[in-house]
Amino acid sequence: MVQRYVRVKTTQAQTYYGLLQLDRSVQVLDAPSWLGGQPTDLKLEPETYELLAPCAPTKIIAVGKNYQQHAAEMGGEVPKEPLLFLKPPTAVTAHEKPIYYPQATAQVDYEGELAIVIGERIRYCPPEQARSKLWGYTIANDVTARDLQRKDGQWTRAKGFDSFCPLGPWIVRDLSAGATLQTFINDETQPRQSALLTEMVFSIEQLVAQISDIMTLVPGDVILTGTPAGVGPMQINDRVRIEIEGIGSLENYLIPSNQGKKS
Amino acid sequence: MVQRYVRVKTTQAQTYYGLLQLDRSVQVLDAPSWLGGQPTDLKLEPETYELLAPCAPTKIIAVGKNYQQHAAEMGGEVPKEPLLFLKPPTAVTAHEKPIYYPQATAQVDYEGELAIVIGERIRYCPPEQARSKLWGYTIANDVTARDLQRKDGQWTRAKGFDSFCPLGPWIVRDLSAGATLQTFINDETQPRQSALLTEMVFSIEQLVAQISDIMTLVPGDVILTGTPAGVGPMQINDRVRIEIEGIGSLENYLIPSNQGKKS
Repeated sequence: MVQRYVRVKTTQAQTYYGLLQLDRSVQVLDAPSWLGGQPTDLKLEPETYELLAPCAPTKIIAVGKNYQQHAAEMGGEVPKEPLLFLKPPTAVTAHEKPIYYPQATAQVDYEGELAIVIGERIRYCPPEQARSKLWGYTIANDVTARDLQRKDGQWTRAKGFDSFCPLGPWIVRDLSAGATLQTFINDETQPRQSALLTEMVFSIEQLVAQISDIMTLVPGDVILTGTPAGVGPMQINDRVRIEIEGIGSLENYLIPSNQGKKS
Repeated sequence: MVQRYVRVKTTQAQTYYGLLQLDRSVQVLDAPSWLGGQPTDLKLEPETYELLAPCAPTKIIAVGKNYQQHAAEMGGEVPKEPLLFLKPPTAVTAHEKPIYYPQATAQVDYEGELAIVIGERIRYCPPEQARSKLWGYTIANDVTARDLQRKDGQWTRAKGFDSFCPLGPWIVRDLSAGATLQTFINDETQPRQSALLTEMVFSIEQLVAQISDIMTLVPGDVILTGTPAGVGPMQINDRVRIEIEGIGSLENYLIPSNQGKKS
């Protein structure tokens, strides 16, 4: 069985890193695996915990227009160098948690993406060393308020709302190069997005190398590798599910913002 | 005497929050002041520590074009809503530390700014409550690779290099509304930037309110409030000093990137 690395919160509000077992119990580790965490005697039964995002990144670096057909559907071209932006850590949410639809926008789009989790402190990493510095792979939804993205120019607000970065459900260490990414809305059987990860313009190795030429990456940091063609809006009460072969499914649902006032 | 809140690293590589005394010794606190830190019995003599940035933000939210004359010099207009972007935590550096001049750019500009430090968890904060949620004020240099900013569109790379966010030297709790911000290069007596903080387009209260409508702010997070007119390039070996009346001076110097290879 493929090892699934999780982060959980218990009903007593304790947070742990752990290994998800076949019976859905969690073998607790004494630290994140990428910091050398080892199994403890503690085992959590399925009804005693909920999944959190599988890591707690100090930064989330995302890449725009990294699939040719998505660049085209956005009316742009693939950039010559990776087009980077940041999402704030407060945007992170977990599998099966709500995405809050902000009052300030009228179009909230899904963007299914492969997320990579950094395992070591990295600076000036050559592409050929990048794979050995990664800790693993998970799934992300780079939720985007499309109208605000167009209006603001800078993408920080459009992509930075609380809950706009679902991440999970767990991390796996290995991934088939030819894995498929698919995004589904509600019970539709036809995917809204469907692509091979090999269609990325800049490879995982190139992204790690180029980002680490700008900024130091630290263990637990996350890189979102870009979304393929087929992005589109979600409505309140929609469920959105992103599947990556060899990882699993990240599912979230849309509810109205809990904002007490107009922004 | 105005209380100066610092964060320091000792020669034994211990990190502490503390209060800077008139004799330059540091009265160590048992936690950051904004988390209720109280004085301990430990006092650090001046030769036994160096200043770090005075807080360790989980995120740095910055505001573009928040002074009318700066918006004009950049060839733009003041936006109708605050134009937000993020700098990564790894960009933070301290007073008297180097700014590394990256190989990927040919123009590295200073941008002197007032930085505000968040004291409480904030979400949907009305402007009239904003002041009570702030912990204090410090000085920032929003260092920017101007050529990359123009080329990339998104500002993440241009403003996100390691060392591109000098912050400090300390935090003060109160600030005169009419305080002056000035930026000096080397021994020049004529400031390159000189403005009153009252010239900000969006006030501190408005910025906190509008940012907290998007994302949760947590204690120690930092908002950079924008730079006034007069931005310009720095050269390797230049020293840059930003002064804000009532806070002090943040000084850094430029050295070549320590990158071992061309990016």
